[in-house]
Amino acid sequence: MKASVYIATSLDGFIARENGALDWLPGADGGGGNGPAESEDYGYSAFMAAVDAIVMGRHTYEAVLGFGDWPYEKPVVVLSSRQMDLPAILTQSVEAMAGSPQDVFDRLAERGFEHLYIDGGATIQRFLRARLIRRLIVTRVPVLLGSGIPLFGPLDGDIQLRHVETKSFASGMVQSVYDVPA
Amino acid sequence: MKASVYIATSLDGFIARENGALDWLPGADGGGGNGPAESEDYGYSAFMAAVDAIVMGRHTYEAVLGFGDWPYEKPVVVLSSRQMDLPAILTQSVEAMAGSPQDVFDRLAERGFEHLYIDGGATIQRFLRARLIRRLIVTRVPVLLGSGIPLFGPLDGDIQLRHVETKSFASGMVQSVYDVPA
Repeated sequence: MKASVYIATSLDGFIARENGALDWLPGADGGGGNGPAESEDYGYSAFMAAVDAIVMGRHTYEAVLGFGDWPYEKPVVVLSSRQMDLPAILTQSVEAMAGSPQDVFDRLAERGFEHLYIDGGATIQRFLRARLIRRLIVTRVPVLLGSGIPLFGPLDGDIQLRHVETKSFASGMVQSVYDVPA
Repeated sequence: MKASVYIATSLDGFIARENGALDWLPGADGGGGNGPAESEDYGYSAFMAAVDAIVMGRHTYEAVLGFGDWPYEKPVVVLSSRQMDLPAILTQSVEAMAGSPQDVFDRLAERGFEHLYIDGGATIQRFLRARLIRRLIVTRVPVLLGSGIPLFGPLDGDIQLRHVETKSFASGMVQSVYDVPA
């Protein structure tokens, strides 16, 4: 099983404002989470089609709930050490799971999942620190925010990346794909 | 007159480790400052040829001095509110200047300079906050450091950028050029 990140950030590395706002994202008026909602989807649908399940933290889960319509068809695992009250319509597709990134990874691998989409700032940072992310797809929005929720955080050592490809779009978005050697 | 930034950062946005080390940069074993020193120069020579003067903070100046041979042929302005002892060989090409970014900018414009290279983390941040940077050339090194001296810092509002072009290199470096509308 592998785990990947697909996320948009400002040029200064924020995935949301301090209050969680995504108003600075092109297409922020619709669509799910930190994924664009214009006719150009920046590879989001193709990426989503390639994953089996989405793993996110409670903050990201609550933010997505707040967007209105639940945007995911795939199973979603919410990392949470507390019991969660799930809206009835989501009980089939969303579950809470506690444990370290490695625990969660191993349990999902045992269930036969092959490709996890790791989402949300804190969760991405934890999985990176645990060296469980194999691919990073980072889409840079041409704006400096100055503050917000950072994509990356502290590590216990360098993580060398292998650049796979970079595309730029008419909107000014620049998307780079990196593999993280095991 | 305009002011530009040309700098390399890790994917997580650091221009140096906490202690100033640049060992994570390709070609960090030679060359001046935060500019590469391989046969591929990532547009550094062309950029340098296009600027009249380099503006940097005292920390960056002292770091460059520590590299050994002085790498700049162009005039260098070191932002410092204190008097500096300059090595005799540099007194013709290096001068200390105190004042706000706007003061420094205006004084250098009066002298007939047309294009400033703004270098060093704190100095870049101050000039960005003062809305004096017109072009950003950011070269991403495919590594996550986890900590260090950040390129970007707090702002008093968003800065919208216009993406000009992005190139990727066999080394895995990805260079994006942004204009900052006035």
